[in-house]
Amino acid sequence: MAGGRFVTILGGFITVAAGCLQAQLFTFPKQELVDYTAKSPFDRLPDGRPKVPDSMIERARGLSAEEVWATLHEKEFNNQYADGFQVLHPGKTMVGRAFTVQFMPRRDDVEDVAEAKAKERGLPRLMNQTAIDMLRPGDVLVVDLFGKKVDGTIVGDNLFYYVMKATHGGGLVVDGSIRDLDGLSEIDMPGYFRYADPTPIGNVMLTGINVPVRIGGVTVMPGDLVFGDREGVYFVPPQFVKEMLDRADEIHVHDEWTKKKFDEGKYKSSEIYSSPKDPKLQEEYREYLKKRLEEIRKQRDEQ
Amino acid sequence: MAGGRFVTILGGFITVAAGCLQAQLFTFPKQELVDYTAKSPFDRLPDGRPKVPDSMIERARGLSAEEVWATLHEKEFNNQYADGFQVLHPGKTMVGRAFTVQFMPRRDDVEDVAEAKAKERGLPRLMNQTAIDMLRPGDVLVVDLFGKKVDGTIVGDNLFYYVMKATHGGGLVVDGSIRDLDGLSEIDMPGYFRYADPTPIGNVMLTGINVPVRIGGVTVMPGDLVFGDREGVYFVPPQFVKEMLDRADEIHVHDEWTKKKFDEGKYKSSEIYSSPKDPKLQEEYREYLKKRLEEIRKQRDEQ
Amino acid sequence: MAGGRFVTILGGFITVAAGCLQAQLFTFPKQELVDYTAKSPFDRLPDGRPKVPDSMIERARGLSAEEVWATLHEKEFNNQYADGFQVLHPGKTMVGRAFTVQFMPRRDDVEDVAEAKAKERGLPRLMNQTAIDMLRPGDVLVVDLFGKKVDGTIVGDNLFYYVMKATHGGGLVVDGSIRDLDGLSEIDMPGYFRYADPTPIGNVMLTGINVPVRIGGVTVMPGDLVFGDREGVYFVPPQFVKEMLDRADEIHVHDEWTKKKFDEGKYKSSEIYSSPKDPKLQEEYREYLKKRLEEIRKQRDEQ
Amino acid sequence: MAGGRFVTILGGFITVAAGCLQAQLFTFPKQELVDYTAKSPFDRLPDGRPKVPDSMIERARGLSAEEVWATLHEKEFNNQYADGFQVLHPGKTMVGRAFTVQFMPRRDDVEDVAEAKAKERGLPRLMNQTAIDMLRPGDVLVVDLFGKKVDGTIVGDNLFYYVMKATHGGGLVVDGSIRDLDGLSEIDMPGYFRYADPTPIGNVMLTGINVPVRIGGVTVMPGDLVFGDREGVYFVPPQFVKEMLDRADEIHVHDEWTKKKFDEGKYKSSEIYSSPKDPKLQEEYREYLKKRLEEIRKQRDEQ
Amino acid sequence: MAGGRFVTILGGFITVAAGCLQAQLFTFPKQELVDYTAKSPFDRLPDGRPKVPDSMIERARGLSAEEVWATLHEKEFNNQYADGFQVLHPGKTMVGRAFTVQFMPRRDDVEDVAEAKAKERGLPRLMNQTAIDMLRPGDVLVVDLFGKKVDGTIVGDNLFYYVMKATHGGGLVVDGSIRDLDGLSEIDMPGYFRYADPTPIGNVMLTGINVPVRIGGVTVMPGDLVFGDREGVYFVPPQFVKEMLDRADEIHVHDEWTKKKFDEGKYKSSEIYSSPKDPKLQEEYREYLKKRLEEIRKQRDEQ
Amino acid sequence: MAGGRFVTILGGFITVAAGCLQAQLFTFPKQELVDYTAKSPFDRLPDGRPKVPDSMIERARGLSAEEVWATLHEKEFNNQYADGFQVLHPGKTMVGRAFTVQFMPRRDDVEDVAEAKAKERGLPRLMNQTAIDMLRPGDVLVVDLFGKKVDGTIVGDNLFYYVMKATHGGGLVVDGSIRDLDGLSEIDMPGYFRYADPTPIGNVMLTGINVPVRIGGVTVMPGDLVFGDREGVYFVPPQFVKEMLDRADEIHVHDEWTKKKFDEGKYKSSEIYSSPKDPKLQEEYREYLKKRLEEIRKQRDEQ
Repeated sequence: MAGGRFVTILGGFITVAAGCLQAQLFTFPKQELVDYTAKSPFDRLPDGRPKVPDSMIERARGLSAEEVWATLHEKEFNNQYADGFQVLHPGKTMVGRAFTVQFMPRRDDVEDVAEAKAKERGLPRLMNQTAIDMLRPGDVLVVDLFGKKVDGTIVGDNLFYYVMKATHGGGLVVDGSIRDLDGLSEIDMPGYFRYADPTPIGNVMLTGINVPVRIGGVTVMPGDLVFGDREGVYFVPPQFVKEMLDRADEIHVHDEWTKKKFDEGKYKSSEIYSSPKDPKLQEEYREYLKKRLEEIRKQRDEQ
Repeated sequence: MAGGRFVTILGGFITVAAGCLQAQLFTFPKQELVDYTAKSPFDRLPDGRPKVPDSMIERARGLSAEEVWATLHEKEFNNQYADGFQVLHPGKTMVGRAFTVQFMPRRDDVEDVAEAKAKERGLPRLMNQTAIDMLRPGDVLVVDLFGKKVDGTIVGDNLFYYVMKATHGGGLVVDGSIRDLDGLSEIDMPGYFRYADPTPIGNVMLTGINVPVRIGGVTVMPGDLVFGDREGVYFVPPQFVKEMLDRADEIHVHDEWTKKKFDEGKYKSSEIYSSPKDPKLQEEYREYLKKRLEEIRKQRDEQ
Repeated sequence: MAGGRFVTILGGFITVAAGCLQAQLFTFPKQELVDYTAKSPFDRLPDGRPKVPDSMIERARGLSAEEVWATLHEKEFNNQYADGFQVLHPGKTMVGRAFTVQFMPRRDDVEDVAEAKAKERGLPRLMNQTAIDMLRPGDVLVVDLFGKKVDGTIVGDNLFYYVMKATHGGGLVVDGSIRDLDGLSEIDMPGYFRYADPTPIGNVMLTGINVPVRIGGVTVMPGDLVFGDREGVYFVPPQFVKEMLDRADEIHVHDEWTKKKFDEGKYKSSEIYSSPKDPKLQEEYREYLKKRLEEIRKQRDEQ
Repeated sequence: MAGGRFVTILGGFITVAAGCLQAQLFTFPKQELVDYTAKSPFDRLPDGRPKVPDSMIERARGLSAEEVWATLHEKEFNNQYADGFQVLHPGKTMVGRAFTVQFMPRRDDVEDVAEAKAKERGLPRLMNQTAIDMLRPGDVLVVDLFGKKVDGTIVGDNLFYYVMKATHGGGLVVDGSIRDLDGLSEIDMPGYFRYADPTPIGNVMLTGINVPVRIGGVTVMPGDLVFGDREGVYFVPPQFVKEMLDRADEIHVHDEWTKKKFDEGKYKSSEIYSSPKDPKLQEEYREYLKKRLEEIRKQRDEQ
Repeated sequence: MAGGRFVTILGGFITVAAGCLQAQLFTFPKQELVDYTAKSPFDRLPDGRPKVPDSMIERARGLSAEEVWATLHEKEFNNQYADGFQVLHPGKTMVGRAFTVQFMPRRDDVEDVAEAKAKERGLPRLMNQTAIDMLRPGDVLVVDLFGKKVDGTIVGDNLFYYVMKATHGGGLVVDGSIRDLDGLSEIDMPGYFRYADPTPIGNVMLTGINVPVRIGGVTVMPGDLVFGDREGVYFVPPQFVKEMLDRADEIHVHDEWTKKKFDEGKYKSSEIYSSPKDPKLQEEYREYLKKRLEEIRKQRDEQ
Repeated sequence: MAGGRFVTILGGFITVAAGCLQAQLFTFPKQELVDYTAKSPFDRLPDGRPKVPDSMIERARGLSAEEVWATLHEKEFNNQYADGFQVLHPGKTMVGRAFTVQFMPRRDDVEDVAEAKAKERGLPRLMNQTAIDMLRPGDVLVVDLFGKKVDGTIVGDNLFYYVMKATHGGGLVVDGSIRDLDGLSEIDMPGYFRYADPTPIGNVMLTGINVPVRIGGVTVMPGDLVFGDREGVYFVPPQFVKEMLDRADEIHVHDEWTKKKFDEGKYKSSEIYSSPKDPKLQEEYREYLKKRLEEIRKQRDEQ
């Protein structure tokens, strides 16, 4: 749809801005971002965010949420999961690098100063499209709109389409709402939101881009690996991504073998799961695991 | 299903009425209805409701909810949208003329009088089927059951089927509940309801047919154009329908052009959306808009 | 997924149990179970539960929820329906015999005694898999986890898969949560749960197997016929199953005839529904009903 | 407080109306009101409402809510109780005659007609103060504001004070909100409301005065006896008031005697309550009841 | 109030029972109760429950909820606290021994058997008053009514009064509702309930007396020390009571000293709390603690 | 109470910190704070916050919430009000200068860096007491704990007592919880919180002191005038405080006069409120207002 208060006449444009224009209250300098994410073993994007490699993003598409959960739980990072979202495309896994945006309720005295500061430095006014225009392939747009429904819609179908193009189908997580649910439903990118509402975004200030934000009970850092499925969304610190992927292979094989055994119909669940009780079965499993891991790695190397 | 308290035996009928029988507490004479909807430029149905033409109802099926919202917002009619419904067939747009029914909690002293008055005038007792039997092609049945779940089910699958037949697939909006969700799911008519529940309707009085009713935060007038999508339901005063449809063409073209530009991959979102910044692009857009509107109108005329 | 706290290393197993191990606080001896379900006219399973015959379970798959409701309502068994669940496979009817499991919040002093008692009798520690391993074909696993979300997940995809195998696709109802929603979605067995959550089950005690349990506003007895559809779940005492099935044939025919009449487009809904008003139509219906019931029974006998 | 959008300057008044001005959509002619409340045995107020006598209103202050409930339950009027309110003065019983007001969400096309109709008939525009100015001693103001919080405040402390003066402390029930909770707390009149909010009433239309209204699950008729305590509010049809008061004497004595017996400490509760088991105690109770009822009636006559 | 369906006529009693009459589904033999609470160091009541001594109950009245919490937390008994209640008398501490009662949703087939079994053994039908009549001084009545509001009222003012007399003001905790809130408010016994409602108890079965019950997230054992304050209710296993009381003295003195220091106005909070940083202050505190504990113990001994 | 995990033994201290220790993620340098609050006409506190004068704080205690609302509404600052709190002392007005603290969900990788940075600069670790120790007379502690209940308790009774001492009874607003509700109830300082809970604060990081924070739908700036009553809390930008106070005098007199007129019993509410209709009454009011304002100002000058 064409912006909340958009009016167009054949002979000329009368445009009321589609979103709220604001300047940034919270700054998180690139060096701070680098410092606070120093445990990431990866390269960095030009904006300072850790760059989980594209190849790992691809492999992460094959994860199950619980494989993600298992590693985070072992590391005692128990605050990295948020749920309670409406899921745009159940069954379509979301994977990408967190690009964070923070909004706060509008107050004009603060915004006037932010704007004056922006002008002083020759910068344009900040608005939701400022952030959106900075998105890169592989990003997931993560927006803290503090659970706002009315006037809390980060995008409608036009901008959601743009985000899909810009991120190469990365995704959107908003602790707030979206517009044009029918329109979004036809666009092939994962989306997680609290509500759908017809109003355009308004009565808020954009207070930070790529600053730490809170989504539900999670502190999200720019560059976190975002993983979403039917249940909810995980924000994985980059330093855990490799281990998580490697470990997942093992869990995949474990589950494969377990189901195979259940299919045989000879065992009670506790004889097989979570690990086989009988030493002979243990041996069988160990060999199966070894063989399958080798196959998987070989197959991966060949790609 | 065969009515809440339905009992049938091969050799004879013992019927306990499927719904609640009532007489109408609130009257809204035809002249009042005509007066209060006098801004409608259209013909009227025999019952006095404005008759948004069938051709416009057909065109309205192509609208997006936000095109509906945009006109209402511009007219400062900001109380015409209700959400929070369960949507029977997501992706199937609902369009039609509002046929309204109001229920209130039962009290026997009131109902006895209503019934006596009905008898005096030689009228039958009012019941939910009395209203349903008055539906016409193109109608959407809009029912105020004040959010009732248990005993607040306006129809089960039998009557929902009948409503589909009688309205030619118009639709149902109930601020209350329905029965037989499995059965309804197989019937091809849009439905919006708060809950599904197995109980039949009961413990209520039918207090008005084609009177103004409240659905969520909306005052619905009989004859309003009802428009529903995945998000919720709009009730559009007839006087705005034509403008809304005309304007929608423009927005359609705007969004078409915007996505085309995004597909080119050369522009930031703010260069294009909500309107192009570069004068040359503006010119390009203006010409595109003109050309496409002409095509659309031509195509429409040809139909 | 491989159990909440599952850790496996190629060269050896370090297993942290996937669930909570407990001993049973409430006992409901086989004789008590037989006594309290004495009205069941059917055989019994080895564990004492009434065994609604397989043939009736098959026929019950063709029921609509409201046919179930109608019989229960007539018998004044109005507390046998629970809703508010997330439904794993909408449109897939669940039918089977209730196998009940009860959990309560953990307290170590109680659990220590339970365990000591178990050891004394040479029994293994009770855990969720103990119950799951007792499931039989045709069972529906019915679990009272008192609405627990975090740490209240009765199964993940491995055990859900096992339950499907063991019950021949019977089903699961849990007043609590499940893990691995993406995984479960691919397994062809009905499931009803309050939440999905990534945590494994924990901080609870298994307090009873095949004891009476409470699910929402229902007292569920082991062996009840469980029936689930898009709306919710019914727990039908075995003594009503036959009558319910027989009566359903009649309601099926009634609805068939009603829709046929509506399709003719000649009648108002109240002329036909819930029963025809015109004596000639009544006669027509009566004959139709008789003929169709005969056909149905014949067809059934032939199977 | 001085009205939502009130502005006053020493040298002159610039007044923006404190409430929403509207004309009445629903009319309920005096004769209809009389007809629908014809079972009332009492005189009528000039506006047609039944007038439960002042003396009965006084006696009703001594009732407990459950004495009210008992009569309504016996008469099978089970929809006359609403709860979920914030109670302004817990412990202060509210009793009076219902004066009802109905609001609906604003739509300008409807309101314009209502206003034109009012002007045509030489009537002033309707606003919340129009209704408030019609209140009489002994009234309780009962307002359907459909649960609105923001912009749904029927009064602030100035008008609440006026209502207290006009009704002689009758009371207020609003399915909506109030302003100035601190101010209201100092005014000695019972109040029942859903929320407190600082906004003035707005974005609504007054659609009916002394028409049937819905408060929670109750259909309230003008002239109903309103009774409120710590739990909630009852709306009693006038025809039941006398019987309710007479019966209450008996229940009062019953409870008096029951507590006296419990105080003796010789009996188990079931030996005494709800009625004595021992024939000798029954006899004792019967005599006590007779004596006390005589005393009460004598005392009442003497007043 | 005089019982839900109580009817009394001067010349004779027609009594419809005030509550629901039932037989007990779950039995928890005295020996089982003794076994499962074997860690209690105290004597037992005749019904087998541990008897926390009266003197400790008296001392426990001086506890703060957090002193209770601290001991339970240290013992890793983190499931012993329930909140979300309406508190009848905020500021009045509740202390006593848990007397537990369990209800489940009614089903007649089960109840008929229970009743027949009762009759067979010459027992009376079980009803809520059966349990209430078994209360002893020092008891707190703890009732699992599974959060039921309507028809879930364990007592009205008559029976609440009786409970007060029988328990010597012990208290009531019900995961359900009460009637007669105005009446209860005048009776000097602590009460914790989810709702107030005018309906009498109904549509439930009494399924256990002094069996383990669940209140919120707590498994309550008969004989637990119940402690309630403005926040919620703790259920303390008897084996922890003595240590809790002794430790509380120390915390009392600690808080006393801390506030004294804050009153001096010389220190930042972190210099004093949670423990003094300066070795001299530590010494001062240690001496103060020693002196005050001696005083307290002396004082206690003298009582 | 003595700290969540406090352990003290007579012969020595073993202290586990009462709160969560953290370093500050968001910095808001003093100059930024000065810039963003540049519209304040007042002096500044040493930490850079605007200092609304003590005399104005005193006058503000006499305000009603709606007088506060009226000025904010006129200035179009409609996002400065938060409600939905539990109010510790209803009837006790809260007034003071906002001292803000922000927490976010804990993640160890971020906290480790913060701590290392703190150590590098020779600073102590940040914890909740660090913030509390910086409070000054006239402050209200405003804490963003993102609505956390369990582990979201900013203070118990010891620290609440300290806050009262340090702020001279200023107050506390926490979008989170408190401990020791019984203890707090005895301390004479206003408190606004979402929940009471027995757990100590934990699993969070202190991310900012005197940074802009969000409380409900409000962006709170350090130094805002905080005003709380029975309904909720306002955060008033300092630049509006003087005008608000002056205007309040007029509204006070207006309400005084209005009630006086209502007391006379001669007028309908609309004749007097919101402003008198009759020119003679207008004149009377104008003179009354003038006289009373003079008196008030004189009285104020004399103080």
